[in-house]
Amino acid sequence: MTYHTTLNRAADAASAAAGPYGAWSAERRRDLLHACADALEAARDELVDLVRAETALTPERLGGEVTRTTGQLRLYGDHVAAGRHLSARTSKGAAPGGADVWTVDVPLGPVAVFAASNFPFAFGVPGGDTASALAAGCPVVVKGHPAQPRLSRRIAEVLAGAVTGAGAPEGTFGFLDAESTDGDPNKLSIELVQHPAIKAVGFTGSFGGGRALMDAAAARPEPIPVYAEMGSVNPVFVLPGAVADEAGREKWASALAAAVTGSAGQLCTKPGVVFVPDTEDGRVLGDAAVAQIAGTAPIPMLTDGMAAAHRTWQERVTGTAGTEAGEGKPFAVQISAKDFAGDYREEHFGPATVIVRADPADYPALADSLEGQLTATVIADDASDADRSAARALLPSLVARAGRVVWNGVPTGVAVVEAMQHGGPWPATSAAWSTSVGTEAIRRFTRPVALQGVPADLVG
Amino acid sequence: MTYHTTLNRAADAASAAAGPYGAWSAERRRDLLHACADALEAARDELVDLVRAETALTPERLGGEVTRTTGQLRLYGDHVAAGRHLSARTSKGAAPGGADVWTVDVPLGPVAVFAASNFPFAFGVPGGDTASALAAGCPVVVKGHPAQPRLSRRIAEVLAGAVTGAGAPEGTFGFLDAESTDGDPNKLSIELVQHPAIKAVGFTGSFGGGRALMDAAAARPEPIPVYAEMGSVNPVFVLPGAVADEAGREKWASALAAAVTGSAGQLCTKPGVVFVPDTEDGRVLGDAAVAQIAGTAPIPMLTDGMAAAHRTWQERVTGTAGTEAGEGKPFAVQISAKDFAGDYREEHFGPATVIVRADPADYPALADSLEGQLTATVIADDASDADRSAARALLPSLVARAGRVVWNGVPTGVAVVEAMQHGGPWPATSAAWSTSVGTEAIRRFTRPVALQGVPADLVG
Repeated sequence: MTYHTTLNRAADAASAAAGPYGAWSAERRRDLLHACADALEAARDELVDLVRAETALTPERLGGEVTRTTGQLRLYGDHVAAGRHLSARTSKGAAPGGADVWTVDVPLGPVAVFAASNFPFAFGVPGGDTASALAAGCPVVVKGHPAQPRLSRRIAEVLAGAVTGAGAPEGTFGFLDAESTDGDPNKLSIELVQHPAIKAVGFTGSFGGGRALMDAAAARPEPIPVYAEMGSVNPVFVLPGAVADEAGREKWASALAAAVTGSAGQLCTKPGVVFVPDTEDGRVLGDAAVAQIAGTAPIPMLTDGMAAAHRTWQERVTGTAGTEAGEGKPFAVQISAKDFAGDYREEHFGPATVIVRADPADYPALADSLEGQLTATVIADDASDADRSAARALLPSLVARAGRVVWNGVPTGVAVVEAMQHGGPWPATSAAWSTSVGTEAIRRFTRPVALQGVPADLVG
Repeated sequence: MTYHTTLNRAADAASAAAGPYGAWSAERRRDLLHACADALEAARDELVDLVRAETALTPERLGGEVTRTTGQLRLYGDHVAAGRHLSARTSKGAAPGGADVWTVDVPLGPVAVFAASNFPFAFGVPGGDTASALAAGCPVVVKGHPAQPRLSRRIAEVLAGAVTGAGAPEGTFGFLDAESTDGDPNKLSIELVQHPAIKAVGFTGSFGGGRALMDAAAARPEPIPVYAEMGSVNPVFVLPGAVADEAGREKWASALAAAVTGSAGQLCTKPGVVFVPDTEDGRVLGDAAVAQIAGTAPIPMLTDGMAAAHRTWQERVTGTAGTEAGEGKPFAVQISAKDFAGDYREEHFGPATVIVRADPADYPALADSLEGQLTATVIADDASDADRSAARALLPSLVARAGRVVWNGVPTGVAVVEAMQHGGPWPATSAAWSTSVGTEAIRRFTRPVALQGVPADLVG
């Protein structure tokens, strides 16, 4: 069977399922999402072993990720069952003639989901896009990640079983094997996005990949929304008060080193640029962070391609040779603000960061020079009037450029909660007003309908 | 000065204004919107005379439209001052380390607004897109309508005076004269949408115009959202109970005739297709509506081009010649459901409609055959079990296809209220999840930012 046939069958089945599944009550959808969580939990050990074989991620990290993913599925189910995803606007007697006007929310239809490789569970086949689309009442057609064919397939089998077991119409959960395209998974991606049955797209990955999907969606006879999360350098601004004493310098050197090297730096919220004061205290912090990061042993990366890209980048920005194939050597470079240009400003996937020594008075202008970001972080001494004053001057630039602003923390570790905004202005995402993490992600896949004077017993 | 120079100056000024105007408190924005409303009110008589000279709309209609537009400006101002446009999500202690996460909302930046011709006030230069962008904290660059150069320019002067008088930064309200392009206003439109300073687009008009703006926006290095409302045939489904007695038939024939001919049918919510039961009662209703519509005197249309298009359409669907230049002859055609194809399914701007005689049992299938719609309407006898049963079978198809579902009313007359959804699936609009009327329109021009542990006194 060619991949065209597979794709058409999955998309047509999703289209046929859209009406009946979209008519399911929120309680039934909650039960389906809980069933998916239960099935993943039951297969936890098998799946973690499988993922380890294809990704080299650690069992600790993967165990936590399974827990996060099952929690996410359950949370989104509970959220819709409680009606918290609804726009719920009412204007009594507002229509001509005095009829009430109020809103209900309906699913958009089949959603194409592209599994990311860096979180095989949380952003993979059973990840946030799948969970939020199913919660919204939309069937999904999920494309597995080409670097992780076996685990994508097996996770899809587990989910498909749960979805079928919950009584959902055939086609509610569809899966496309990236391997089926005879070496060109991108063709499959474009064809999937351009299939007339598909009504929205969820994607986490590279800028190039996201842009290609956006262009394909915009060129359709019926353009559809693409929710692409494409990455960011996640700037961190360290204010002087935070590193005025040794305890502060040690604390933040360790926290930053852990955030840069954790999961081999393969996180979309990894701090890729850290601005430190161009002072003796700042130098000590920078040197400590450089030393801690460089003292971390090489870490296996997700794919040989990513490891090679990391090595190339290291050679370009440091002039020194990288480590052996498949592994990422953690490192940090320190530069002064006047050299902050070119490669140093580009997102880099891997255990590395750029430390920029700058006059804190220049932080707002440096922030203004950055593109859209998923996150921006301020590290400061809460009790310092000087830091508070500097933060007050800096924060407007960060709020204007980022989807989330973190205070005295690190940007990694995205909480799956109602208030989360995991998004941000272009080129961090394709749709700055949307989030791909947190319950608000569900709303990407619904639209409100105003009912004007319709007898309530005749709808829903 | 070439139109390039004018455009660049307006866009650059809007870009410069975005930061300072975006930082205004909601109360100041409310005061600015109220000042705009007051200025329009003060110039009411002058403006209505000017609009009449360029549009042939009646003074009664225009007077009501000024009132609606000033009410809209005031409502949107009050809405933001009350904080009702905010996403306002909070997750206490949710971040790693226990910090709170909550959202604030920030403006997207300069918005390009394209004035529509059919509502020179409510959807024109001072219309819903301008009002909602200014309410959101975004500067606007408004392109006047090429068919209405003098009134566009004069309304812009009035608004610019009010915005300046309210103390807003230069560039907060920019205006582009469609006449300045030496005969090709479309070039100006595309260049405006592709100017790097522009961050979002509001448009009401034709499908071709909306699609061209969408394509231009999607092709930018930084794609931006286009909120285009492009029209609809607004199907009406008459159930048998509603026309079982003469009073019902007379009432609905009159109501439909008024909705078809009002404002010369130049409304995006005009009922363009009316399904009536293929029974004797249905025939009487259809004949009465046809007679009432045809008995309405020819009505001056907005432009000679629109009148000519109306005449051409009349000749195509009826085989008879239309009326003289500049005027629209009201008419309705009656066909049977088997002939409902081609031209009959296309939106037609003007005082005409298509009455389709069908078996009410086929209504759900007929509804399923329609494209996305701004509105869909059911006319039924509330007390009839048969009608309620038929409506229950029909409503899911209407909710799946329309932005608003009307019960026992006509779709014209869009209330400017919180629960209004003036939008709908493709090709009615470019963004089915958004509305161009009602306070929710403001949210199109903001995005949420999550704050994680940021001291509250340092932001806002």
